[in-house]
Amino acid sequence: MTTLADVLAAAERIRGHVHRTPVLTSRSLDAELGASVFCKCENLQKVGAFKARGACNAVLSLDAATAARGVVTHSSGNHAAALAYAAAVRGIPCAVVMPETAPAVKVAAVRGYGAEIRFCRPAEREAVCAALQQERGAHLVHPFADPAVIAGQGTAALELLEQVPELDLVITPVGGGGLCAGTAVAVRALRPTAEVLAAEPLAVDDAARSLATGVRQPRVDNPQTWADCLLTALGEPNFRLLQQHGVRVVTVGEQAMVDAARFCLERMKIVVEPGSATVLAALRALGGAIRGRRIGAILSGGNTDFAWLR
Amino acid sequence: MTTLADVLAAAERIRGHVHRTPVLTSRSLDAELGASVFCKCENLQKVGAFKARGACNAVLSLDAATAARGVVTHSSGNHAAALAYAAAVRGIPCAVVMPETAPAVKVAAVRGYGAEIRFCRPAEREAVCAALQQERGAHLVHPFADPAVIAGQGTAALELLEQVPELDLVITPVGGGGLCAGTAVAVRALRPTAEVLAAEPLAVDDAARSLATGVRQPRVDNPQTWADCLLTALGEPNFRLLQQHGVRVVTVGEQAMVDAARFCLERMKIVVEPGSATVLAALRALGGAIRGRRIGAILSGGNTDFAWLR
Repeated sequence: MTTLADVLAAAERIRGHVHRTPVLTSRSLDAELGASVFCKCENLQKVGAFKARGACNAVLSLDAATAARGVVTHSSGNHAAALAYAAAVRGIPCAVVMPETAPAVKVAAVRGYGAEIRFCRPAEREAVCAALQQERGAHLVHPFADPAVIAGQGTAALELLEQVPELDLVITPVGGGGLCAGTAVAVRALRPTAEVLAAEPLAVDDAARSLATGVRQPRVDNPQTWADCLLTALGEPNFRLLQQHGVRVVTVGEQAMVDAARFCLERMKIVVEPGSATVLAALRALGGAIRGRRIGAILSGGNTDFAWLR
Repeated sequence: MTTLADVLAAAERIRGHVHRTPVLTSRSLDAELGASVFCKCENLQKVGAFKARGACNAVLSLDAATAARGVVTHSSGNHAAALAYAAAVRGIPCAVVMPETAPAVKVAAVRGYGAEIRFCRPAEREAVCAALQQERGAHLVHPFADPAVIAGQGTAALELLEQVPELDLVITPVGGGGLCAGTAVAVRALRPTAEVLAAEPLAVDDAARSLATGVRQPRVDNPQTWADCLLTALGEPNFRLLQQHGVRVVTVGEQAMVDAARFCLERMKIVVEPGSATVLAALRALGGAIRGRRIGAILSGGNTDFAWLR
């Protein structure tokens, strides 16, 4: 299981290759909630999301012989761009299996970092990736169910605790659970009095159901949600880490999530994708329960086409 | 004339009342320009613009008796909210004369900081404000042609030079010239080898014409521009400071400005109002002339209704 030592080693490894992202506050948000909220802006991270941290840690952890054979993954989203970036940092080959339905802007981002793209039908992603991996002898970097990725994602919370030491509560979005698990490891070790919460859209509430039932639950099929970054179901090691650290899930509706993303845009002047805005929507839902508390909110990404704004 | 000592005193005075805003970089911007651009994010400043700096310095500079009678100004934009905020910080009365045509969101912001609003017909702004000032014995804080305001705005560049010491060039937008003049004072004193540039929309190019002719030129009537924050003509002390420090103006077209604002939104994940995006548009226009240079770009504000995005 991932520990604080892994997160600390990751921070050392990726230093200089990822941004130390700023922490922003909003007087009007604090007034509304009656709390002090410190927003860790991973939307301003390289590739526009925290994913750069985990991908860099995974790629920089590889021994020279493995690295030389390159890395592969399958992803339609931010992890693809993050792995392409990390591979470019190390100067090794990277191939990404993407569904033919992937948005053009994401395809362009991956290509921009110099990775090879292999397109496939959405249902064939894992099979095509496995075949590619064997063909090349390449190393598969899973988007979230990978200890090196989890440790890398935990470095955002590590920085946040350096930037704002006395937090009572840290909240992250949860999809596959890479960010949330890494955050739980770092926060619970460094500040045991602080609680860790996970924000999840109701439309894809498998993490809430998994933690409530104690059994990892499958994802919802074809969910209708703006949170395109949170469609994946919780990974196995991620689930266990969330259990171990007593992470509590708060679910939010679509309108609350979009309202929170709009608040970030109009009041905080930052682009936060709807799935990431779940953390602010969750804080609003918690209402009186967080009054007077000092809260770290990890705004995980800012990659969006603004369709939700219309 | 405003000097570095005034800017240093302002920084001391406003500390804790304004944000030390982050500096962001963009790999794709640097690659496009062949330069290193350090964006000073005053769009993430309190009230969404650098104006909080000058207003706080002006209000906190007042002696107790003057302060007790309150402050007034006329503004339809960011200065109104900034002065309301500064007055709230000091706990003194603030009245703002706003044209009836002011956007509802700006009116709400000023009211949110507890200021009194007096509406008037747009052409009567100055007269109504002068009458109000006399009636109350209040102190008028001009949006830009005021030494305390200019010194306050200069603190953004002061911070930027602390955050990124070795700059070859600093660029700001220019409207009334408060930010640009304060920046010129700070940069030319602390780093005499660095050049200061001002970015201005072609549609309201009075600063370019004023500096080119050596005579302060009137503003364009009813300009058609998205840069609603840059409609005012250069102030008198501002003009003289820009002349004294050899500031050069670069003019940009509307499409280039909107394209730059969109780049900030989509690639840098930050909201920058079109008038502020002039600095990036100007850098693009300069092309080869800035190759290899280290550039500070002050992104002055983020208050926009996104109408330009459609």
